[in-house]
Amino acid sequence: MSALVLHEYAQSGNCYKIRLTAAHLGIPLERREYDIMKGETRSQQFLGEVNANGRIPVLQAGNDFLPESNAACFYLADGSDLIPHDRFERADMLHWMFWEQYNHEPNVATLRFWLKWIGEANFTELQRAQYPVKRAAGEAALALMDAHLEHRAFFVLDRLTLADIALYAYTHVCEDGGFDLQRYPCIRAWLDRVAALPGHIPITT
Amino acid sequence: MSALVLHEYAQSGNCYKIRLTAAHLGIPLERREYDIMKGETRSQQFLGEVNANGRIPVLQAGNDFLPESNAACFYLADGSDLIPHDRFERADMLHWMFWEQYNHEPNVATLRFWLKWIGEANFTELQRAQYPVKRAAGEAALALMDAHLEHRAFFVLDRLTLADIALYAYTHVCEDGGFDLQRYPCIRAWLDRVAALPGHIPITT
Repeated sequence: MSALVLHEYAQSGNCYKIRLTAAHLGIPLERREYDIMKGETRSQQFLGEVNANGRIPVLQAGNDFLPESNAACFYLADGSDLIPHDRFERADMLHWMFWEQYNHEPNVATLRFWLKWIGEANFTELQRAQYPVKRAAGEAALALMDAHLEHRAFFVLDRLTLADIALYAYTHVCEDGGFDLQRYPCIRAWLDRVAALPGHIPITT
Repeated sequence: MSALVLHEYAQSGNCYKIRLTAAHLGIPLERREYDIMKGETRSQQFLGEVNANGRIPVLQAGNDFLPESNAACFYLADGSDLIPHDRFERADMLHWMFWEQYNHEPNVATLRFWLKWIGEANFTELQRAQYPVKRAAGEAALALMDAHLEHRAFFVLDRLTLADIALYAYTHVCEDGGFDLQRYPCIRAWLDRVAALPGHIPITT
């Protein structure tokens, strides 16, 4: 594998996913920090060289750039036990990763960003209108996870896969977005299981 | 592979992706239609047996159920030439598929649904407020695709992969959502290339 550089904003759960995957695999990452609050990922240089979509994280492998957090995790983990070797289970892992980006992140992660970085007092009118919708959709996502975990130790197999890593990233800090983990006991037990695994690193690492 | 049943709403681009992937691979699918406008995917039976998330498509393989369109495409195509055999290119294909679900579908597909199924006269206040935001985000997604395709025949390799299938599904009907393909000549040429391939089927199939 070429030398790897993670272009990131360290507090972003999407960036943390990649660091957590790399930590479990023992893969070293060089890290380059951008201040998204100062628009550093919207500069002409970033758009031209790193990601035309103006977003972090981007994983750089040699001269190649890979946007989208879950794709970067897949690249790092390809061929390892973090991806199921069975065809259906591998697709089922991807199901949870696509679900995370469509149903979980736009609600659970967005409310964390809105409440912790922007602040409710500074909401636009549109954010105020979307807030209850994202709250309800975020609670629905957490409830679905809690029900799924009622009789399972991890999301797909009986061990950690990228599905767990992708969902752990924003779920373990969801209280920053005003969600109450006391309502979700199966999620809490799963968060503890993930955090207790050898190789685990916290988001602050 | 077990017998496959596609639980779907045929006009949905997300369902079409799976049929298009199966057509290119010559894999037969049994199809079961649900009327999403009548809430048939929110019934207790559907939520309990098919998908707790209340959404189509779901690909059923024997007694196992796989939600999320792009995960279902990956399952069908796993090991075939529709997925790059090189590790970085495989992840790059997934990058476009995650991008499709995060940046493209919630704008390009949602405006199609809003305009063609709901109708502008029936918009809620929130939909009216979100409309210009989704319009701008949809145009930005199409512009990014057009720029990417300026010097490329397909999204990842010089041949069709799941990235093209995932993005073709809603892009080729984006004018239903009020987008004007005349603004995107490289997308138009790519749509023609995809549609001309042996094995291609239209969304109306």
